[in-house]
Amino acid sequence: MMAPPNPARSLVAPHALLPQGWAAQVLLAWDAAGTLVEVTPGATAGGAMPRAPGVVLPGMPNLHSHAFQRAFAGLTEVRADGEDSFWRWREHMYRFAAGLTPDLLEDIATQLYVEMLRAGYTSVCEFHYVHHDRDGRPYATRAEMALRLSAAARRAGIGLTLLPVLYQASGFGGAPARPEQRRFVDTVEGVLHLVEDLRGLAECVGLAPHSLRAVPPAALREAIAGLDRIDPRAPIHLHIAEQQREVDDCLAWSGRRPLRWLLDELPLDGRWCLVHATHADAGELRAIAAAGATVGLCPTTEANLGDGIFPAADYLATGGAWGIGSDSHASVDVAEELRLLEYGQRLLRQRRNVLASAARPDVAERLWLDAVAGGARASGRPIGGLAVGQRADFLVLDSGSAWQGLDAGQVLASHVFAHHGERALREVWVGGERRVADGEHPLARESQRRFVAARAQLLDGV
Amino acid sequence: MMAPPNPARSLVAPHALLPQGWAAQVLLAWDAAGTLVEVTPGATAGGAMPRAPGVVLPGMPNLHSHAFQRAFAGLTEVRADGEDSFWRWREHMYRFAAGLTPDLLEDIATQLYVEMLRAGYTSVCEFHYVHHDRDGRPYATRAEMALRLSAAARRAGIGLTLLPVLYQASGFGGAPARPEQRRFVDTVEGVLHLVEDLRGLAECVGLAPHSLRAVPPAALREAIAGLDRIDPRAPIHLHIAEQQREVDDCLAWSGRRPLRWLLDELPLDGRWCLVHATHADAGELRAIAAAGATVGLCPTTEANLGDGIFPAADYLATGGAWGIGSDSHASVDVAEELRLLEYGQRLLRQRRNVLASAARPDVAERLWLDAVAGGARASGRPIGGLAVGQRADFLVLDSGSAWQGLDAGQVLASHVFAHHGERALREVWVGGERRVADGEHPLARESQRRFVAARAQLLDGV
Repeated sequence: MMAPPNPARSLVAPHALLPQGWAAQVLLAWDAAGTLVEVTPGATAGGAMPRAPGVVLPGMPNLHSHAFQRAFAGLTEVRADGEDSFWRWREHMYRFAAGLTPDLLEDIATQLYVEMLRAGYTSVCEFHYVHHDRDGRPYATRAEMALRLSAAARRAGIGLTLLPVLYQASGFGGAPARPEQRRFVDTVEGVLHLVEDLRGLAECVGLAPHSLRAVPPAALREAIAGLDRIDPRAPIHLHIAEQQREVDDCLAWSGRRPLRWLLDELPLDGRWCLVHATHADAGELRAIAAAGATVGLCPTTEANLGDGIFPAADYLATGGAWGIGSDSHASVDVAEELRLLEYGQRLLRQRRNVLASAARPDVAERLWLDAVAGGARASGRPIGGLAVGQRADFLVLDSGSAWQGLDAGQVLASHVFAHHGERALREVWVGGERRVADGEHPLARESQRRFVAARAQLLDGV
Repeated sequence: MMAPPNPARSLVAPHALLPQGWAAQVLLAWDAAGTLVEVTPGATAGGAMPRAPGVVLPGMPNLHSHAFQRAFAGLTEVRADGEDSFWRWREHMYRFAAGLTPDLLEDIATQLYVEMLRAGYTSVCEFHYVHHDRDGRPYATRAEMALRLSAAARRAGIGLTLLPVLYQASGFGGAPARPEQRRFVDTVEGVLHLVEDLRGLAECVGLAPHSLRAVPPAALREAIAGLDRIDPRAPIHLHIAEQQREVDDCLAWSGRRPLRWLLDELPLDGRWCLVHATHADAGELRAIAAAGATVGLCPTTEANLGDGIFPAADYLATGGAWGIGSDSHASVDVAEELRLLEYGQRLLRQRRNVLASAARPDVAERLWLDAVAGGARASGRPIGGLAVGQRADFLVLDSGSAWQGLDAGQVLASHVFAHHGERALREVWVGGERRVADGEHPLARESQRRFVAARAQLLDGV
């Protein structure tokens, strides 16, 4: 360090979780653009340097979100019968999507992003598919809906990766889209225009071919080739192997399971995020890891939708990348996603601390660091942890009050695995800006008011 | 009603969940002892009658608690290796139990009971096994430790069923107790004395033969016969079929699975609460239901300890009774227990709303009412819901702020299944006394301070 850091853009963390593990007295400093320029353990800071009021963690990327689905979180658990499923839930979702307007989407997304920040997510990947108006016609500004997501992210102060979705079919083999899908459907050319229009309006713009069932092979290849011409490093996300029926339908169509088909047919690499991958076999898990793709796990949504339990212990043993997403937003809580991921494995294997490893025997630490690193890769952004050159995205957990007397690892373990009604998260910083102070976001009251009104309007229409 | 209800002991709930389902404008009135004397839907209350500030639910009984385990919640997730299990967790538990004193237990339990109230539990069954001093000698007052639990419950204001534990062996066939179990071990006579000493110091006193592995058959029969002489209606709880190893060991010992052995050998009835019953087969499930016993499910603990997934859909289809407990207190959250119970079934069966029924198509309503009714039965107390003759134990969920515009069923469904960082629980009433107002318990700050000091002292010793 040549000059003392600017106190307005630095602090000392009594304990911080760095990519290599815990460190004490860590000086964090960032530049005016919000990029870390110094991460120095053992700092002997002068009295002028602010101290973080607790344990500092890297902020969590949320690698999978459909913002508008927040509007009906908890509202698909009523008036069910014994045969309820993912596919029936999808009909609910279509009804809510049908009523969406740009204003409603912006209000819902703003509230959601405020909630994400309060929960410890410092960035979000929007897998965005409601492109058109209620009749399926492009808006006058083609990117209208995506612009509203961008505006919401800016207002809330969360980092954004925008992934416009390519959606064309209602099933494998190019079955025509259903009328309920008309707001989602576009040509490859249309979606690539959207990608170009959006560059600069989010921190990163990639592409999301919705799934193998919604995108025929020729369109998939054409879209990826088009994206390569725009930005050969842009992230590519798709839903895959979420439901057993999808696996069965893909087998019927191609003779191959969906992950097998994808691995055989396309050159997967570190740009790819395979969302869910719930029904993956051992060979597929190894191939995903070997390709360097990221698996996008959404444990609370995968539980809520009855997808099944991802074979996480087997996958993590390959060293493959993964991260977490709140997806349908039934829950927006980093700790609950990680807890449920580990608990699913414990229930399956009848063991404890299944996802701990020899290198990382503290399971919460292992899960947190893995999910940050994988989430950063899927987001196409430098948000992979507390290291020079990465964004200054970080959280401060209370290490006083209920957590007094615990060491930093115990505070983190308690945050993820022990839940007694207290909010541990005190501060959330994004790109060096404090977005949440004392557990609260300044926009919370206003965004909730607008969200409630937006939801009421949508509920009127369904 | 002969006279208008005393406004200090009554209120009108705009919406309340009664045993038969939702009702509007429900007048609730209770007597000076805290028992409901009127539950009248469609009331046209005068202006003097207070209104509940939201949706009213019956308070949830917590049917299984080991209070002292709260002290290490979240602290057994660190420094694990790949072979961690329930049995290794038990060694942690023994170390914490070794350091316990009466003062520490009271401080831990007080904090726990405050947390339970804030989470919506209005009563608790204490499965209490740390009877003796560090050397395994009875305290001068034999009931010393149980008295501290009783004092904690009174201070916090939660209903209490005390279940002194009979513990004698370290394995099936009467293997001698280990030194680490010396604080738990007692004679049948000793435990029956404890039961007698404690009557009047809790709302209900029963007996907990720890498990088939810790209580040989002769002692089990003798203890139950003794309990019958004291109170032939007192509840009887035991741990059973929690871990596969327990099933295997029981088979090796007796040739029968633990639930089969119990069903064959003892006359189960409505007094019995079978805690966990995780590894139950179809015949055992039917027999439990036919006997009228209650299954005590502890979903967050059963996940945390890697017990396995209870076959809840099959059991609920029998119409059998069940309730929930927070057990080891990794989580203290009614909503999370019910959510995880349903999510386990969704993940297994790859369906949604698995535990809804034709009679109760709203899954959260079904789960809530079942768990209240079963919890009441296991508690041996009139706390089975909002009906005349039951205790005035109830909760008020916020139906404004984030929940504005939702109907009562949607508010409940959101409380259980949608989690966005807001506390919905505004008020908690126990026996007609408001223990939590505006989400807060008056003792919270003081109890947390004492808890933190108690934990620090215990951590020093392990």
